[in-house]
Amino acid sequence: MVSERTIESLANDVVSGNRRALSQAISLVESTNTTDEGQAAELFEHLAEHSSATRSRRIAISGAPGVGKSTLLEGLGLKLIDQGHRVAILAVDPTSKRTGGSILGDKVRMPKLSVHDAAYIRPSPSRRSLGGAAAATRDVMTLCEAAGYDTVIIETVGVGQSETDAADMVDLFLLLVMPLSGDDLQGIKRGIMEVADVVVITKADHSKDNTNISVAQHKAALQLMQPSRPGWTTPVVATSAVTEDGLRDLLHVIDAFFAEDRWPGIERVRIDQQLAWFDELSRKRILDVVFANESITKRLQQLRSKVHHRNIPPSVAVRELINHISVAITEKL
Amino acid sequence: MVSERTIESLANDVVSGNRRALSQAISLVESTNTTDEGQAAELFEHLAEHSSATRSRRIAISGAPGVGKSTLLEGLGLKLIDQGHRVAILAVDPTSKRTGGSILGDKVRMPKLSVHDAAYIRPSPSRRSLGGAAAATRDVMTLCEAAGYDTVIIETVGVGQSETDAADMVDLFLLLVMPLSGDDLQGIKRGIMEVADVVVITKADHSKDNTNISVAQHKAALQLMQPSRPGWTTPVVATSAVTEDGLRDLLHVIDAFFAEDRWPGIERVRIDQQLAWFDELSRKRILDVVFANESITKRLQQLRSKVHHRNIPPSVAVRELINHISVAITEKL
Repeated sequence: MVSERTIESLANDVVSGNRRALSQAISLVESTNTTDEGQAAELFEHLAEHSSATRSRRIAISGAPGVGKSTLLEGLGLKLIDQGHRVAILAVDPTSKRTGGSILGDKVRMPKLSVHDAAYIRPSPSRRSLGGAAAATRDVMTLCEAAGYDTVIIETVGVGQSETDAADMVDLFLLLVMPLSGDDLQGIKRGIMEVADVVVITKADHSKDNTNISVAQHKAALQLMQPSRPGWTTPVVATSAVTEDGLRDLLHVIDAFFAEDRWPGIERVRIDQQLAWFDELSRKRILDVVFANESITKRLQQLRSKVHHRNIPPSVAVRELINHISVAITEKL
Repeated sequence: MVSERTIESLANDVVSGNRRALSQAISLVESTNTTDEGQAAELFEHLAEHSSATRSRRIAISGAPGVGKSTLLEGLGLKLIDQGHRVAILAVDPTSKRTGGSILGDKVRMPKLSVHDAAYIRPSPSRRSLGGAAAATRDVMTLCEAAGYDTVIIETVGVGQSETDAADMVDLFLLLVMPLSGDDLQGIKRGIMEVADVVVITKADHSKDNTNISVAQHKAALQLMQPSRPGWTTPVVATSAVTEDGLRDLLHVIDAFFAEDRWPGIERVRIDQQLAWFDELSRKRILDVVFANESITKRLQQLRSKVHHRNIPPSVAVRELINHISVAITEKL
């Protein structure tokens, strides 16, 4: 809850690029407290008045632990800043047990980037469900953009739902894989390969042969798949923390993806993402409200117990539940 | 709608094994008409009084078109009847354009089984959504069991959702594959291989070598996967429409699956399936009721349009929608 300042002045401070105000605003939208939710809504209304014409790039970087995400983020982030961008990095790690101490972690992981004026690094919100973290992350991206960060990077560990969630909230999805992680091609990672806009082979300096084989393997695998987006062919880029050739290639690929003539398409996808998220979230919250009702949950438990003991088939039990609910909804609204 | 007879006498006729009554009862539960839904609920209440102690076996047979499902169903169905079982076969084919004429189709597909006294074949309900067909199929299984069919077989084409739906409503899932359909092992079918309780290689008479290779390939692939159920190893059985060796092997496997000591586990899974279906269906229907409300849909459209034009982020729009709805629900119930 924001006390000593009004929400309007907080909004102004965020827009003017005040780093402390941004952190405070993020805490507000990450909060599950009801008062905070109301203030967060108010905050977004103020921010909407300031909405600038600047296009932001939303990028996700995903890959299994140890693949080299921090190293790539440090290198890529600094290069983007050299190009004149301002970069926000948001970690989404549902498995993370890290709390406030994670700032130190980021200082170790990205030593130059974490202290750079043009970069803002926000660790993963702790004690939040995966869905909750994903929900907050979308709003946090909007806040970062309002604060003038024109490149927002979501960092996610390569575990199931977090990757899909991240892919659904960004424009460009970078999948990091290690050379000769041949297992990835056998189907386990198929779902994630299909949404990858760029496949980045990391640690290319370790073995040139292995890297070349991996690049060829991934290119071959990608050819058998649907393109991640219409009119875009997923490139495979080999990078190394030691040599910087790969980083330059990756920057070119990112610039090509966000080329002027590709923006109308990117905007369309983003609106679709927002609407899909609105639909998903509204369904989830409506059910939360319905199931928070004591009379409904009581009836639900009775009927569930009947189904459990095979007194009635589920379809009949659901019908009874719906009769109970629909009277209230149709009469009241 | 059932007119000239009471629902109670229809229930009695179904239980006594009257085939016409069963068909009429099935039409009733497949109907989306509100009056029929009420009568269907009444019917199940009457049937619950008759519930026998007989254990039914619920089996799904799935596989791509042309794999030989009809041939296997004909052979397996007749063998099961020889063993003293009564067999009901329900087709679930969401892509089917067939209507009433499909009875003729079944006569051609399963010439002996379709005219056998101990068999009941029900074609796919037409003009139903996939979810609707799946919903009705669960109830139709219960009706067939009430009518004395102790083996209910769901037949589904090998396309996405219909297989998963079928797997969730049966005890035993048979996956049919052709010899050397090597593509199946490359990931496309992985999801479905993982839920297969038995893999059946069809057309084993075409080439003994290819069949042996396919059996070995599938066994190797299955070893890399989680078992379909705890304590069960998915066998791979080669069958042929010409020789009957494979059919006998398949019968032995089915008997082993439904062995006396495995029933407590099967019952537990079935109760979990019913409860999961109750939960899924109740969520779906609750949302149907909420979105059928004019005041809610009007508000929803306004907010969706605001999100579309980027006036407010989805989270804020959803919050406004929920405020609108929750007042009604909390005040009324």
